[in-house]
Amino acid sequence: MTIVERTESFERRGRVAQAVERLRPIFGDRLSLNETVLAQHGQTTTWLPHEAPDVVVFAETTADVVAVVEVCRDLRLPVVPYGVGTSLEGQVNAPFGGITIDFSRMNRILTVHAEDLDCVVEPGVTRTQLNAYLRDQGLFFPIDPGADASLGGMVGTRASGTNAVRYGTMRENVIALTAVMADGSVVRTQSRARKSSSGYDLTRLLVGSEGTLGIVTEITLRLHGLPEAIISGVCPFGAIGDACNAVIATIQSGLPVARIEFIDELGLRAVNRRSHLDLPETPTLFLEFHGTEASVAEQAARFGEIAAEFGGGPFRSESRPEDRNRLWHARHEFYWASRDLRPGSESFVTDACVPISRLAECVTETMRDLEESDLVATVVGHVGDGNFHTQLLVDMSDAAEVERAKTFVGRLAHRAIAMDGTCTGEHGVGQGKMKYLIEEHGPGLAVMAALKRALDPLNILNPGKILPDIAAA
Amino acid sequence: MTIVERTESFERRGRVAQAVERLRPIFGDRLSLNETVLAQHGQTTTWLPHEAPDVVVFAETTADVVAVVEVCRDLRLPVVPYGVGTSLEGQVNAPFGGITIDFSRMNRILTVHAEDLDCVVEPGVTRTQLNAYLRDQGLFFPIDPGADASLGGMVGTRASGTNAVRYGTMRENVIALTAVMADGSVVRTQSRARKSSSGYDLTRLLVGSEGTLGIVTEITLRLHGLPEAIISGVCPFGAIGDACNAVIATIQSGLPVARIEFIDELGLRAVNRRSHLDLPETPTLFLEFHGTEASVAEQAARFGEIAAEFGGGPFRSESRPEDRNRLWHARHEFYWASRDLRPGSESFVTDACVPISRLAECVTETMRDLEESDLVATVVGHVGDGNFHTQLLVDMSDAAEVERAKTFVGRLAHRAIAMDGTCTGEHGVGQGKMKYLIEEHGPGLAVMAALKRALDPLNILNPGKILPDIAAA
Repeated sequence: MTIVERTESFERRGRVAQAVERLRPIFGDRLSLNETVLAQHGQTTTWLPHEAPDVVVFAETTADVVAVVEVCRDLRLPVVPYGVGTSLEGQVNAPFGGITIDFSRMNRILTVHAEDLDCVVEPGVTRTQLNAYLRDQGLFFPIDPGADASLGGMVGTRASGTNAVRYGTMRENVIALTAVMADGSVVRTQSRARKSSSGYDLTRLLVGSEGTLGIVTEITLRLHGLPEAIISGVCPFGAIGDACNAVIATIQSGLPVARIEFIDELGLRAVNRRSHLDLPETPTLFLEFHGTEASVAEQAARFGEIAAEFGGGPFRSESRPEDRNRLWHARHEFYWASRDLRPGSESFVTDACVPISRLAECVTETMRDLEESDLVATVVGHVGDGNFHTQLLVDMSDAAEVERAKTFVGRLAHRAIAMDGTCTGEHGVGQGKMKYLIEEHGPGLAVMAALKRALDPLNILNPGKILPDIAAA
Repeated sequence: MTIVERTESFERRGRVAQAVERLRPIFGDRLSLNETVLAQHGQTTTWLPHEAPDVVVFAETTADVVAVVEVCRDLRLPVVPYGVGTSLEGQVNAPFGGITIDFSRMNRILTVHAEDLDCVVEPGVTRTQLNAYLRDQGLFFPIDPGADASLGGMVGTRASGTNAVRYGTMRENVIALTAVMADGSVVRTQSRARKSSSGYDLTRLLVGSEGTLGIVTEITLRLHGLPEAIISGVCPFGAIGDACNAVIATIQSGLPVARIEFIDELGLRAVNRRSHLDLPETPTLFLEFHGTEASVAEQAARFGEIAAEFGGGPFRSESRPEDRNRLWHARHEFYWASRDLRPGSESFVTDACVPISRLAECVTETMRDLEESDLVATVVGHVGDGNFHTQLLVDMSDAAEVERAKTFVGRLAHRAIAMDGTCTGEHGVGQGKMKYLIEEHGPGLAVMAALKRALDPLNILNPGKILPDIAAA
């Protein structure tokens, strides 16, 4: 630590002490300075260093969040929102210390408007909690990132998952937000109307902003009726290109496929082993169709025909819930299945998204790159959206391998951007992807920085995320 | 005109002369000072006074737009983008003069990526021009506001129309934008990837901003495959409430209805007269289903059952293209049909949008209000979204009637906002709806103003629209 850093750290400790003094009467034992608690909240699922905050508070109301933001505004301290800590790019790290707001106690489902197909929830509610609550009413919320993330975190990263090809991402499924802004004001971004042309789209501005523009305290979500009938299935292909072309043809034909997921050969082997399945170990699509009995049968038959045109198949479909669940459970276990392939390794997942016409090329080049880089990784993709993930299995004791893995991630980002795609389709920027934004956005990055300065001039809201060039509070 | 106003006007004329001097070499005879041309570009479809710009230029490239914005930035002159002039709230008025950029010559369809279901167009392309171009490729662009608006204008107002219930609005169907910002920089808001978590959503920030944050010069749009089969139909109901409840049940059942439009009794009479139809003159739904042959037949049958549950029907469906077209042509002639009801009157359309559970109540109260206010108006609605329009037929020579109509529009806005809806579902704010935004957005309006100041500190981009409290350049 340099003298300047030590001085700054000492100076910050004084401000932190003042903040604790002001917040203790409000939070009592919901304010923690316990080293273990602090360390837990600075833990990331990435290879980025863990960076703990100075203080953790457990919020229970919007007023609690206002109190924290006002204190941090007055004392120039960072505020970091924390859901369940499953983000993949260091979004919950506290590189400049400050106060982390843990939302695990703000996990109430406030209202379900069944007639309007929407609900209002607090940000600590997780997606499985919400769906368990909704099931009796014949409703569901479709966005399903791999982890059982909090809905606040999913707003932050503009999350999606396997159903996005039909139901959209958080971008399309958040109707309105209540957020505490950097000046302490509480804003509701819009009404519950399905459509609005009434001014700037503050909802979409906050979705994907990772807590850097406002701290979300209530979320109005769009819901969907549980489909009357569901068919799931798997379809093997001879090569990645064939699988991708079948996906393109499926989407283009207007088939309203609910899920269309790609898993590569190595990934299939991992899934077979972990979930005791005997699927052919070849590039494979996992699919699901939602609709009426007649409609899902027709969709499945049509997909089978399209797959055959591209040399794929047979398309094995399952309509019994237990068979379908076994299949999707295997898909959702993909992360753990992949880890099992190389015991003792650490696992890092990176994502990219390209126009679907470039998907086969992007995945093929990426797999060649992995081989040439002597790296072990599985590939899985929400291919209906052109989005895929690479799960690297890295021996962290081998510095050269870690370095190769890091440069591989950089090449993947550049490759996706060069194909008119993005360095992140659904994981967000956090700390990990900041360095690619200037390449991806050019002058757009200056616009983003101007928005950040306008809404958070002191840079207290989750500093050090998304925007590379803005110094912390 | 006060002395201050005259001095300002005189001073502005000097700046305008300088702007003309700088722009003439670039635009030649594409720069117009002709009074008729100026007057045409300040004409509105509303009862707001017409306000002409000082200069009109006909842009042909993004570089042209940059040149205008740079000159206006240097000389502190307003820039107003103009498509085809069909906006309904005074969006193209030039209340502080300045330069209007006419986009009618930027009407090229630049690229169609059929495999990716997207295309890139210039802002002067109209929706019917695009669809005529796409038809051979089996693709279409679904957003259809009443007028044959330009796509640039549709981006500006976050337009929607009859298909939004299934295909979304401009919010969901714009993938990326190229825009000239107030400082003259050219920004592409995002890549062509379907999904992205890469920073702030600049696309959605510009969609609906009515040219106040940036001037759009290229639009990447999401396309859809033409449905294999289509069934359209009409279904009469005994009362508005029954029709609305049938809509709610239809949406909730997950029926993927493509269009579900409401027309009131008086509107039906107008439609019958103009289009020589003999539909029962009662609250009626116009519907359309898209899918495979089997699926549309099933959807139509299911809707018929739902309608019957609410006392509606019989549901008369048509699958022959000429019959379907006759029906939708009648629907799209609604504006002219309504005008015919009261020859000599002027017609003003206002829209509002509420959660669908409040729709019957909102429409019923609005119709009672019309009656009590002694006003003549038809009601039509994109009811699947909770959005409806009131088309007032006003005798402009009767000052008292005009006043009653204006206060009625205000009450409608307040009513919608009080029901957790919005004062505009798809027409935008422009000048006409500015006065309702503080009631609708509260502290959110200050956030919008901060965004405007950050991106357009000199307030040169379409000043006097959306935000009430910002003075012109």
